[in-house]
Amino acid sequence: MKELYGYIDRHAQEYIALLQKCCRQPSISAQNVGIREMAALLVEELSRLGTLPDVVETGGNPIIYAELPGKNAGRTISFYNHYDVQPVEPVEEWVSDPFGAEIRDGKLWARGATDNKGSLLSRLLAVKAYQEVYGQVPLNVKFIYEGEEEIGSPHLGEFADRFPQRLKTDGFAWEGGSRQVGGPLEICLGVKGLLYIELRCKTASGDLHSSNAAIVKNPAWRLVQALATMKDAQDNITIDGFMDAVREPSAYEMECLETLRFREDATKERMGLDGFINDLTGIPLLKKLYYMPTANIAGFKAGYIGQGAKTVEPGSAVVKMDLRLVPDQTPEDILPKVRAHLDRRGFADIEVVKLSGEPPFRADPECLFAKTVIKCAKPVYGIDPEVFVSSSGTTAMYQFCHRANLDAVMFGAGNEAANIHAPNENIILDDFVSAIKMAATVMEEFAKA
Amino acid sequence: MKELYGYIDRHAQEYIALLQKCCRQPSISAQNVGIREMAALLVEELSRLGTLPDVVETGGNPIIYAELPGKNAGRTISFYNHYDVQPVEPVEEWVSDPFGAEIRDGKLWARGATDNKGSLLSRLLAVKAYQEVYGQVPLNVKFIYEGEEEIGSPHLGEFADRFPQRLKTDGFAWEGGSRQVGGPLEICLGVKGLLYIELRCKTASGDLHSSNAAIVKNPAWRLVQALATMKDAQDNITIDGFMDAVREPSAYEMECLETLRFREDATKERMGLDGFINDLTGIPLLKKLYYMPTANIAGFKAGYIGQGAKTVEPGSAVVKMDLRLVPDQTPEDILPKVRAHLDRRGFADIEVVKLSGEPPFRADPECLFAKTVIKCAKPVYGIDPEVFVSSSGTTAMYQFCHRANLDAVMFGAGNEAANIHAPNENIILDDFVSAIKMAATVMEEFAKA
Repeated sequence: MKELYGYIDRHAQEYIALLQKCCRQPSISAQNVGIREMAALLVEELSRLGTLPDVVETGGNPIIYAELPGKNAGRTISFYNHYDVQPVEPVEEWVSDPFGAEIRDGKLWARGATDNKGSLLSRLLAVKAYQEVYGQVPLNVKFIYEGEEEIGSPHLGEFADRFPQRLKTDGFAWEGGSRQVGGPLEICLGVKGLLYIELRCKTASGDLHSSNAAIVKNPAWRLVQALATMKDAQDNITIDGFMDAVREPSAYEMECLETLRFREDATKERMGLDGFINDLTGIPLLKKLYYMPTANIAGFKAGYIGQGAKTVEPGSAVVKMDLRLVPDQTPEDILPKVRAHLDRRGFADIEVVKLSGEPPFRADPECLFAKTVIKCAKPVYGIDPEVFVSSSGTTAMYQFCHRANLDAVMFGAGNEAANIHAPNENIILDDFVSAIKMAATVMEEFAKA
Repeated sequence: MKELYGYIDRHAQEYIALLQKCCRQPSISAQNVGIREMAALLVEELSRLGTLPDVVETGGNPIIYAELPGKNAGRTISFYNHYDVQPVEPVEEWVSDPFGAEIRDGKLWARGATDNKGSLLSRLLAVKAYQEVYGQVPLNVKFIYEGEEEIGSPHLGEFADRFPQRLKTDGFAWEGGSRQVGGPLEICLGVKGLLYIELRCKTASGDLHSSNAAIVKNPAWRLVQALATMKDAQDNITIDGFMDAVREPSAYEMECLETLRFREDATKERMGLDGFINDLTGIPLLKKLYYMPTANIAGFKAGYIGQGAKTVEPGSAVVKMDLRLVPDQTPEDILPKVRAHLDRRGFADIEVVKLSGEPPFRADPECLFAKTVIKCAKPVYGIDPEVFVSSSGTTAMYQFCHRANLDAVMFGAGNEAANIHAPNENIILDDFVSAIKMAATVMEEFAKA
């Protein structure tokens, strides 16, 4: 691989220029901004590799599919990535334009730089470099680029149903992942699920003068009182039946936690925290982070939220919640439990609207693909990787991989301080180049494993 | 007065044009928009009356003072009004431009149309009409126009301290008021107080990916749990000691409620309500509306509040609250009680920031000025007025009138469906013209009373 690594290093500026070009194209699925333009850009790049990309129309944003035959025609690797990004709000907290892709301090700063354009391109460019150095990729390669990952992948299942042949593979390199800054690569074998809901309450046809608060129900107060029944002060989720399906981690799952190098002080400093919930530390902290569900208030909007004082009583109010689920919870089970919980406590007037849902997923840690990926990390990064049974986050692995009984492994170009989903998302340029090498190494090693 | 009423009717279009001009000039004190321009416009109009307006600089927005000598040099009436307006958000709910002052369905639609530019101009134009018909006003007139009423009148007390002579009067016509559509004029002898606070919580330096919710405190959850201790499900305010100073209404105060014609069904329909809090009706409803304090959530902002789903954990969250106070509560007493209440329950991490405060005020219902104003309503409106011991709302009567021991009465050009402080504020043009006649009648009658 030395020759290939050298080639990649010599072409780094060209690769970074392509990343910059892709990051300058907004592609916000939640707001339907720039999606088609971004898809067209990727179709162009995939065509350059000699593929014939298929832009598969769904009820929503298209899924781009492409494939390349390899020297070892008996083995296939698939790259799942997504070309949509999160919204940029609050935009005033960005140091530079979220779609400016400014390079500063060895990083490229942009919405989508890490999640997921950096990882997507690291694989596409690994293929390109491999072709340029060796003529042909070592194994069959399939590319699946989704445009709705950030809104819960509502059409990925439909794609899986329509094209079972395209799903066939020996190993699925899923989306991406990160490494500790200058530290080990993180390899992840599963994800939490997600149920994203809005709680909506409307008590009047519009906002009212707040002198009416004496006699008119306030929808923000209704939501506050309903929410107060859903979690206690010790961060226990108290939605009736919510915890029923949660299983205790296995001995193996607990052992994996012992191998992680989670740097508590650095994490606190980076996020600006006084401490973690319930002053947790060590294994109990990691157990909660990776193996326990959450009930997060992602947004709360009611009444006047501008500068200064306005004496208004809101006519309606909305809470956005994302609930991260662990085995064996499912969105289908939890959603009616939330509804029943509220009804039982007199909150039938609060509407519960599901925006998206995704079950949790775990791959088999003993499969050939997982073992191969884990083996490839040290030659690239110079240090053994950390292996996570589950991410603390979510992607649509379940509906794709569970269906086809696939093994999927996540690894990518990000870093722990990449600010994904937050202002000032970034990617370390050296990590981006390493990720290209890593993807190339995985292709090489998995072809002959 | 017949001659004067006829003159006012013939000049109605000219008066409406001036109202339109004033409403097209934004003057949002909370956002510091258009204040100086609006003040200049009023100085011009006051100058036309033959006054020499004094633009009194304060630490904030100027207070405009002007005076005119009357035929009865031994009696003075004062007009307190304010030229600032509330913010217009949510602007998307306005049917027409908030500063377009569009005339539609016999109404003028604009922020400030009723609160307070309509009432302000009704008095200025009553003086103008009186001068044009009779040469000179019947009694001394003082004008005091404030530019910070909507942000809690932070400099009105300073003005009162600096200019005790300018405060001297025999009767204070305060700000404005409303009438039931086509019904009796409402005359009001007092106001609730107001404590406007923000509860702020910050747990991280910025918004985070919501996978961190398992281990990082969520500031929105902190505020929800704190708020849940401040009010119960029956709308009782449970802030420690909050109700201590609230006195039971007197027999006279309860009698006044019996005379009010509060139309419950029309109110519910206008506001789009299913019902009132606790299904209250009749006297208990009115008692709560006019004589009980409130703890209103005026705004709640946390995390992602745009369209669709964003999996973010907020780094900070803010709740805006206005607490309407009744005798003998004061902002000075209540503010530390809120702080102590939160501290006692483990919410020392929640910051309590006072934005404004105003004690409640009640005038003497037996004073000459009140009796005169009450007598003037029937000739103009053809029906006896309703008399309120206290408004459900707030103005800065206390710090002005309490200090100088003044009698103040509120009456004005608005209507019950004027949407003050809300989208689609409006004024009925006929009411505006009636209010000019009412102000002229009060001058005439009070001069000779």
